[in-house]
Amino acid sequence: MPRVLFKAELDKPMAEWDLPGHNRWHPDIPAEVGVNPGEDFRVECQEWTDGQILNTDDAHDIETVDLTRAHVLSGPFAIKGAEPGDLLVVDILDLGPLLSWGYTGIFSKENGGGFLTDYFPKAYKAVWDFHGIYATSRHIPGVKFAGLSHPGLIGCAPSHELLAKWNAREKALIATNPERVPPLALPPIEENAVLGTLSSEHRSRVAREAARTIPPREHGGNVDIKNLSRGTRIFFPVYVQDALLSVGDLHFSQGDGEITFCGAIEMAGWIDLGVDLIKGGMAKYGITSPIFKPGPVEPRYSEYLMFEGISVEKETNYYLDATVAYRQASLNAIRYLTNFGFTPEQAYILLGAAPVEGRIGGIVDIPNACVSIGIPLEIFDKKILPL
Amino acid sequence: MPRVLFKAELDKPMAEWDLPGHNRWHPDIPAEVGVNPGEDFRVECQEWTDGQILNTDDAHDIETVDLTRAHVLSGPFAIKGAEPGDLLVVDILDLGPLLSWGYTGIFSKENGGGFLTDYFPKAYKAVWDFHGIYATSRHIPGVKFAGLSHPGLIGCAPSHELLAKWNAREKALIATNPERVPPLALPPIEENAVLGTLSSEHRSRVAREAARTIPPREHGGNVDIKNLSRGTRIFFPVYVQDALLSVGDLHFSQGDGEITFCGAIEMAGWIDLGVDLIKGGMAKYGITSPIFKPGPVEPRYSEYLMFEGISVEKETNYYLDATVAYRQASLNAIRYLTNFGFTPEQAYILLGAAPVEGRIGGIVDIPNACVSIGIPLEIFDKKILPL
Amino acid sequence: MPRVLFKAELDKPMAEWDLPGHNRWHPDIPAEVGVNPGEDFRVECQEWTDGQILNTDDAHDIETVDLTRAHVLSGPFAIKGAEPGDLLVVDILDLGPLLSWGYTGIFSKENGGGFLTDYFPKAYKAVWDFHGIYATSRHIPGVKFAGLSHPGLIGCAPSHELLAKWNAREKALIATNPERVPPLALPPIEENAVLGTLSSEHRSRVAREAARTIPPREHGGNVDIKNLSRGTRIFFPVYVQDALLSVGDLHFSQGDGEITFCGAIEMAGWIDLGVDLIKGGMAKYGITSPIFKPGPVEPRYSEYLMFEGISVEKETNYYLDATVAYRQASLNAIRYLTNFGFTPEQAYILLGAAPVEGRIGGIVDIPNACVSIGIPLEIFDKKILPL
Amino acid sequence: MPRVLFKAELDKPMAEWDLPGHNRWHPDIPAEVGVNPGEDFRVECQEWTDGQILNTDDAHDIETVDLTRAHVLSGPFAIKGAEPGDLLVVDILDLGPLLSWGYTGIFSKENGGGFLTDYFPKAYKAVWDFHGIYATSRHIPGVKFAGLSHPGLIGCAPSHELLAKWNAREKALIATNPERVPPLALPPIEENAVLGTLSSEHRSRVAREAARTIPPREHGGNVDIKNLSRGTRIFFPVYVQDALLSVGDLHFSQGDGEITFCGAIEMAGWIDLGVDLIKGGMAKYGITSPIFKPGPVEPRYSEYLMFEGISVEKETNYYLDATVAYRQASLNAIRYLTNFGFTPEQAYILLGAAPVEGRIGGIVDIPNACVSIGIPLEIFDKKILPL
Repeated sequence: MPRVLFKAELDKPMAEWDLPGHNRWHPDIPAEVGVNPGEDFRVECQEWTDGQILNTDDAHDIETVDLTRAHVLSGPFAIKGAEPGDLLVVDILDLGPLLSWGYTGIFSKENGGGFLTDYFPKAYKAVWDFHGIYATSRHIPGVKFAGLSHPGLIGCAPSHELLAKWNAREKALIATNPERVPPLALPPIEENAVLGTLSSEHRSRVAREAARTIPPREHGGNVDIKNLSRGTRIFFPVYVQDALLSVGDLHFSQGDGEITFCGAIEMAGWIDLGVDLIKGGMAKYGITSPIFKPGPVEPRYSEYLMFEGISVEKETNYYLDATVAYRQASLNAIRYLTNFGFTPEQAYILLGAAPVEGRIGGIVDIPNACVSIGIPLEIFDKKILPL
Repeated sequence: MPRVLFKAELDKPMAEWDLPGHNRWHPDIPAEVGVNPGEDFRVECQEWTDGQILNTDDAHDIETVDLTRAHVLSGPFAIKGAEPGDLLVVDILDLGPLLSWGYTGIFSKENGGGFLTDYFPKAYKAVWDFHGIYATSRHIPGVKFAGLSHPGLIGCAPSHELLAKWNAREKALIATNPERVPPLALPPIEENAVLGTLSSEHRSRVAREAARTIPPREHGGNVDIKNLSRGTRIFFPVYVQDALLSVGDLHFSQGDGEITFCGAIEMAGWIDLGVDLIKGGMAKYGITSPIFKPGPVEPRYSEYLMFEGISVEKETNYYLDATVAYRQASLNAIRYLTNFGFTPEQAYILLGAAPVEGRIGGIVDIPNACVSIGIPLEIFDKKILPL
Repeated sequence: MPRVLFKAELDKPMAEWDLPGHNRWHPDIPAEVGVNPGEDFRVECQEWTDGQILNTDDAHDIETVDLTRAHVLSGPFAIKGAEPGDLLVVDILDLGPLLSWGYTGIFSKENGGGFLTDYFPKAYKAVWDFHGIYATSRHIPGVKFAGLSHPGLIGCAPSHELLAKWNAREKALIATNPERVPPLALPPIEENAVLGTLSSEHRSRVAREAARTIPPREHGGNVDIKNLSRGTRIFFPVYVQDALLSVGDLHFSQGDGEITFCGAIEMAGWIDLGVDLIKGGMAKYGITSPIFKPGPVEPRYSEYLMFEGISVEKETNYYLDATVAYRQASLNAIRYLTNFGFTPEQAYILLGAAPVEGRIGGIVDIPNACVSIGIPLEIFDKKILPL
Repeated sequence: MPRVLFKAELDKPMAEWDLPGHNRWHPDIPAEVGVNPGEDFRVECQEWTDGQILNTDDAHDIETVDLTRAHVLSGPFAIKGAEPGDLLVVDILDLGPLLSWGYTGIFSKENGGGFLTDYFPKAYKAVWDFHGIYATSRHIPGVKFAGLSHPGLIGCAPSHELLAKWNAREKALIATNPERVPPLALPPIEENAVLGTLSSEHRSRVAREAARTIPPREHGGNVDIKNLSRGTRIFFPVYVQDALLSVGDLHFSQGDGEITFCGAIEMAGWIDLGVDLIKGGMAKYGITSPIFKPGPVEPRYSEYLMFEGISVEKETNYYLDATVAYRQASLNAIRYLTNFGFTPEQAYILLGAAPVEGRIGGIVDIPNACVSIGIPLEIFDKKILPL
């Protein structure tokens, strides 16, 4: 077991930890922990909402969650010798839960929303119990699967220039429809910003500049890619001195898309990382976004039931819109699962939390995109095929 | 080898065949061949452009291809006893090429376009040679892979009502920007319509009503899903008496998205099908789009290099747009591959033709969708990893 | 489709073909067909008993089969430029059946025997129907699986020296118990020898010297390795000028061990091969037996039920005997399958014919070897797990 | 993390632990820990030699290891309600190392031996470092792989009757060649027997009756099956009241056969188990040896290089002897690996420790068995293929 370089104190808000992490992206958040290239180390992470969600049977906590506190991240870690333009090599050596349970939530439309929020506007929650590599839920009986555990969020701090670019383009998007619910994007917000050990004199400025952690961006960040699992090697662009790597939002399992927004099995957990550097690697390989090689121990299933979706919604044709197509595929899958004793909410949760595949089909056959979603059949305790 | 129920005459246009197929969707196209549930049968298919593309080293044929002749489909087949509301069970028992070569094309922006047409506006072609399960190309040296062969296009005829719905919604889409190049959608066109053995008195009417075969729709059709491969079982909605199943556009291999539009390895081929019926299955299972269970013999690779893309294009943020994200992931992959001796065109072709995975990442993390594209490393004759 | 270089005439005995193959190993059997390194070609093969087994419901043909006629091999093929000491690279590009059926037999103890002949002394037969990649049998209902098709037998001719060595050591083995039924080994036998186009003056001498094709030997030959499937590359030692490659005994599918002896799904079929040479490769790599890299399209299953066996038989402990251990594992599996409606003979056939895994467990834990046999659960139409 | 029901004290011999386990099989060894069906629990295990092997660069410890102290087992656990004739269902929920290193040894011929002891008579050791799911060794550079971690040894206590049967048949085997080195089997030995909390009055009798833990037997025990990995469900026969389950000999990784005897990556570790009962399951399913369903997270590789072996050793033909065949395959693989910079000892260790496949080929083709051994190519940092 490698040395623990970052401790999570699960019994109190991150702001009160001895060494707090952060819940915004900003290059001025200081790194208190340094790591040498070639070193393995362990990081502990609180679940993404800072412990707001409980192991209970009602969804009141999901309904009223304060999303300005998310995502609580562990770090930043200073990778010694890293300079802008390098590639930071990160090996996800292993990860696991700190507690024996996790949860999946459907956010209400008024507070967070989700991929199918127009169809599922109310809050809902399922709690999962971990049995070694497997998860089961008292709220979704009849299902058991191995977790494809991964960090939902990992990446390096942006430079000031990159941060300014993020803020500008997201502000422009919001401006196209500022009253929308849920909003089109999440601008910087000072409230509840946790900025590590940043001294109080810089706090307000940084909090007002710092990017929210919700969207994935070109540094990676909250990409919610289920295949960043055990054994994966990632190559990250480095934008600032010492790289300033942070990680959090660990998922015991997740389906492609994490469609309920809070759709993975969210957990507090530990992650073992190894790091290395490729000096000047960004230019050498022309890399401007992370690339990765998934690990060899993903749970593998051989039988999937797949549902197709096309970019037609409520009689309207959308031009090669893969998002609409994936939504339709998801709705088709949910409707089908209700034939087998699942409620629509259970089915929706399941698509977000189980190791579900979301694959791009035809993306060029004008005007319709086709996307498919596949559910492994081995996770069910009964047969869910028509024939 | 099952009985051949449909012959392709590769040396002449489909319109001149003894038993022509069709290149439009319409319920009035008559079925000359009947099949009983429980029966296995073989179907031969011309490649999708009706033989316009040659085994040559220049792309003149791609540049000037007449897309009003596509897709040439084999069928329709009358499945005896099928009625609207049934589910037609189709087993893809096996398939393979009729010739020892196929091709992948990049259409020019003026004639067809493709997923990256703004970046690759000119026509391009690669010819592939088949060596049993493997493909190689003299136009893309250093690459060899096993084909994930599948029909790009398969489905049942729409009812008159469904056809009318298709035409209405696609017309509405075109109306939003009628001058666009490439066009937003493809309306019915009488020119070059082949309608099987339809009697001449109905020809003009049907040709003017019949839907083009390019887009996938709720009946399936041109879904271009690579995983509809050997051994797959598909459940199709039935809209008309006898189901009227058609198939074509066989692909020796394809990457998710078939991103060059003519992006699979297009081939003339044979396909062995088995059919069965679930009476009243659409209502019983609430199925309105095809569902399927992929076969067990897909080429499997254990090492992938994956590229991330987010829904930001040229400094503009698009709201949870998986199409933009997949485009960015594709561009990232193409740029990377040029480090290893491939031209951008070769890399683009490769993403369309090799067994490449396109996976939905986070689709809820406002405002950015994240999509990843993965290339199997075993297909290259050299190492293409940074470390 | 590559050029057919060897035709099988399925309606008559191989001895009467225009170009007969051979059913013995001898360096003097002439090669009538030459192949250049780099070339792809197709070979047709009769099923291994020379067409003695019929698509019927009784096992009389199995009971009385004349094994002196086996295996009928296609070839030899002269690989131009091959010399002793080279490695012959053979790519199994693809293969398939020539007819739509095959069979699996249990030989009687008096005529051939098998791995469990003491428990199953009587002849038995199951006929399999091919549906594309799948096989089903009217004699074993409730089972369907994808074929892991492969040549049971492939290899190069021995030199005179190597042949003499084979004959000497096998003769020595027989001498240890010459009366045994089944015999310990099969000496050369002139009766029914087919020796290609060998001129009559050499016939009798060669037939009396030529090795039987039943056992695998250091040249490969009848190795019955199910993983020599589509897409496999094999590296064979070359012992004589032009290598003299032969192939036959195609199997639609087989379980590890081919335990009923005639235990694969035997079929007449075609196989597409590609060949190349590594000059002096035997010495360069120290290779004295074939090595191979299996292809990427094996049917893959994710759920197996595995049975253990140890080297204890009828209260007697055998010292690290993997053969006894595999026999016990097989018997355990057969007994278990009878809980689910299979007769012992059906279960025995199934272990020989389905894509069953036979794996070496502990082989050092004195005195007991442990070997396990695994059955893919997806091949059954019902659940066969206890829990 | 489930409750720890058994603690290993790695700093002292098991005999001195607060709650010692045992290193012999006997039904009179008392269970101090009870478990209810349905319960998850954690067990800690010392490495199998009781801590005799050190993280050093010489093999003196291997050479002089005292094998009468092995295997140190954790347990027995009383499964409440279990009765003879039941099936005990054991879920291997997860497992991992307690330290960050493990080792693989080659025993000397005089003290333990191994599968190739005639070729490798001297002691040798490699130490492995764990990096999350991966192992590397300073003693075998150029190799890195994911562990297929599993308990080498797990099973229930025999009844007095079964124990007597074991002793009788193993004694009979020894009697056939009592002077052999290594011995043919290991009789009970009082020296160094650890028998849990057995009271001193019974100690001597039990120690003289108790079976050694080295061989696998019909209860399972030291089966050394690498596929009993994370997520596996095993069904064990129950022979005594409360089942008396024990576990130990955890392996970070192992190749099929564990061919160096001490051939896995031996480690001290923890294992999480879940248990359940099928009352009367032995008779209901006719099960007399364990059966199991492997877990879904085995490291999977797509490219293997496989070596064939036949049952001919030093010019002598052995009748269908899979053990000889596997030995020949192993020797072929070792010889080949020395072409790529490995010493024979390193190659031998690697076959025992890496996730290597040992598969039964033809076991019926008289007189030669064929067995193959396959090495995943992805574990090497260079290409080890001839072409």
